[in-house]
Amino acid sequence: MVKDSQFKGKVRIKEVGPRDGLQNERTFISTADKIHLIEKLSESGLDYIEASSFVRPSWIPQLADASPVLTRLIRRRGVMYAALIPNLRGLQRALHVSIDEANIFMSASEGHNKANINKTIEETFPILEEVVKEAQANHLTVRGYVSTVIACPYDGPVQPEQVLYVVDRLVEMGVTEISLGDTIGVGVPPQIERLLELLLEKYPPTLFAMHFHDTYGTAIANIVKSLEMGIRIFDSSIGGLGGCPYAKGATGNVATEDVNYLLTAMGYETGLDHGKLLEAAFFIESKLGKPLKSRQLEMARGEVKVDESC
Amino acid sequence: MVKDSQFKGKVRIKEVGPRDGLQNERTFISTADKIHLIEKLSESGLDYIEASSFVRPSWIPQLADASPVLTRLIRRRGVMYAALIPNLRGLQRALHVSIDEANIFMSASEGHNKANINKTIEETFPILEEVVKEAQANHLTVRGYVSTVIACPYDGPVQPEQVLYVVDRLVEMGVTEISLGDTIGVGVPPQIERLLELLLEKYPPTLFAMHFHDTYGTAIANIVKSLEMGIRIFDSSIGGLGGCPYAKGATGNVATEDVNYLLTAMGYETGLDHGKLLEAAFFIESKLGKPLKSRQLEMARGEVKVDESC
Repeated sequence: MVKDSQFKGKVRIKEVGPRDGLQNERTFISTADKIHLIEKLSESGLDYIEASSFVRPSWIPQLADASPVLTRLIRRRGVMYAALIPNLRGLQRALHVSIDEANIFMSASEGHNKANINKTIEETFPILEEVVKEAQANHLTVRGYVSTVIACPYDGPVQPEQVLYVVDRLVEMGVTEISLGDTIGVGVPPQIERLLELLLEKYPPTLFAMHFHDTYGTAIANIVKSLEMGIRIFDSSIGGLGGCPYAKGATGNVATEDVNYLLTAMGYETGLDHGKLLEAAFFIESKLGKPLKSRQLEMARGEVKVDESC
Repeated sequence: MVKDSQFKGKVRIKEVGPRDGLQNERTFISTADKIHLIEKLSESGLDYIEASSFVRPSWIPQLADASPVLTRLIRRRGVMYAALIPNLRGLQRALHVSIDEANIFMSASEGHNKANINKTIEETFPILEEVVKEAQANHLTVRGYVSTVIACPYDGPVQPEQVLYVVDRLVEMGVTEISLGDTIGVGVPPQIERLLELLLEKYPPTLFAMHFHDTYGTAIANIVKSLEMGIRIFDSSIGGLGGCPYAKGATGNVATEDVNYLLTAMGYETGLDHGKLLEAAFFIESKLGKPLKSRQLEMARGEVKVDESC
C-alpha cells in the first residue's frame, strides 16, 4: 500500500456484518459462531458493532437468536453493541439483554417503506417515535437508518428533498445519528454529492453515516465523494457479507476490509488491525461454506497476485 | 440505473482487452476466437480497440498471432485498430499488416522499466523515438503508455514529477496521446488528483487517458476523480480480462462494462451498446473456461439480485 503522506484525521467504520450482512445469508450460522464472529470483530479495533436484529423472529430466522447472542457475548470495553429495533416490542426484548444503542429504520421512498415495513412513511413516524422515547427513557441513544436515499426498487429515483424530509422528522424525534443507505447500490458520486449538499446546508456532517452496497461497484467511489463532503462515519460489513439470500454470489454491503484499505491508503486513521479483520472474515467464510468476495480477501487468498509485468 | 439528469458530454472508452487483457490470460485463445472477440467489440460501438501486441512472440505466446489477427480481421469503418509496439522491429511487423496507431510503452519508475523492458529509463527513450519517427513516416499516430504512475512494485511510491519527466520526453518525440497506468492498482483518488494537477498545469486534459487496474477495488473511484479533473478517455478491458497469468481469479483491468455503467449513470455519453458489450464478454468467458468477474456480468448472470428488502 502506498499511503497518502498527508494525515487526514480519523474515520469511524461501523460494522454491520453480524446484522445487515448475516440477515441476507441463507446458511444458518449458529449462535456460538455469531458470538465468535462478533468477538473477533471487536478484537480488530472496531468500536461499533451492530450485533443483531430484534425484528419478529419469524421474519428473519437467521437473527431469531438476537437475545442469546447479546446475552452470552463477552463484551469488550469501549465497544458499542447496537441492534436493529423495528418497534416498541423489539426494543423491550433488546432492553432485557442490554444494548448500547437502538437502531431504527425506514425508507425515504414510499414503495420500499411499504414493502419493508408494510406502512406508509407517515404511518411509520409514530411507531419510531415511540421507540425513540422509550429508548431515551432507558438512557439509550438512537441511530436512524434511512434506506433508498438514491433510488427505490419500486419508485425509481429518490429526490434529495424527500430524504431531507425524513431526516428532519427523525432529528425532531431525537435520533442522534442518521445512516443514509443506497440500498440497491445504484448511486454514483454526483448523486451522493447532490444529496449531501442539501443535507449539509442544514445539518453538520457529524450527524450522518453513509451506508453503501456495492452492487454496481460504485461503493468505494461513493465513499470517496462522501469523505470529500465531510462525512467521517461509514457502515460496512466484514467480508462484504450480505446481499440477497436468493442468489449465489450476491453482492452486499461494501466490505469492511476494503473500506479500511481505502481509508488507510488515503491517509485516514481507522484504528483497525487489518490482519484481524481478515481473520474475522475468514472465520465467517468458513462457516458460510462459500467464498466471500472482497478484494482484500482475494488478495489474502492469493487469488490476486499483483501483476508486475504489464 | 438512475441516470444523472445533467448531460455531461462524451467520454471515450478505449478497449485494451484483446491485448492487455488476453496477454495475462493463461488459456490460449485461438486466432479465430480473438478475431471474433474484436469483431464483437467493434459492434458494441467501441471505436478504439488495441487488437494485439508486436512484442517478440516468444515473450507473450498468447499474442504471437498478432499478424494473422490483424490480417484476417474484418475492420469496421470508424474503428481504430491499434497494437502494442516495443521497438522498430515490432513496428515493421505491424506495418506489414496495417494498424491505425502504434502504442509504445515504458514505465515512470526505474525498477519496473528495467523488469519489463530490461533497460533504464534513459536507455528506453532513443528506442521509442526510433519507433515514433518511423510511425510518423508511415502516417501513423503514436500513443504512449506510461506504467507505474502511482507506485512501482520494485521502487515503491512514484512521484508525480517523475511521471511529468517521462511525459515531457514522450511529447517532445511526437507522441499524441499518453495513457497513464496505475499498473499495480494501488492508487487512491487523492494520488490521482495530485498527479493530474501537476500534469494539467502544463498539458491539456485531452493529451491523457487513464488506465486503471482494479486490484484493490479503487479503479472506479479513480475514474471518477479523473473525470472531475477533466480527463475524458479511459482504457478498460472487456469482462475485466487480464490480471496475472499465475493466479486464479486475478483482478486485471477495470471492466469495460462496469466503466460504461458508471459513465452512463453519471450522465456521460459513451455511445456503447451495453448488451453487445456483455455479449462480447460472455463470448470470451466461454473460451477462457473461467468466470470473469465484472459487476455487470455478475448481474447479467443473475448472481447478484438487487436486494429489495434491506
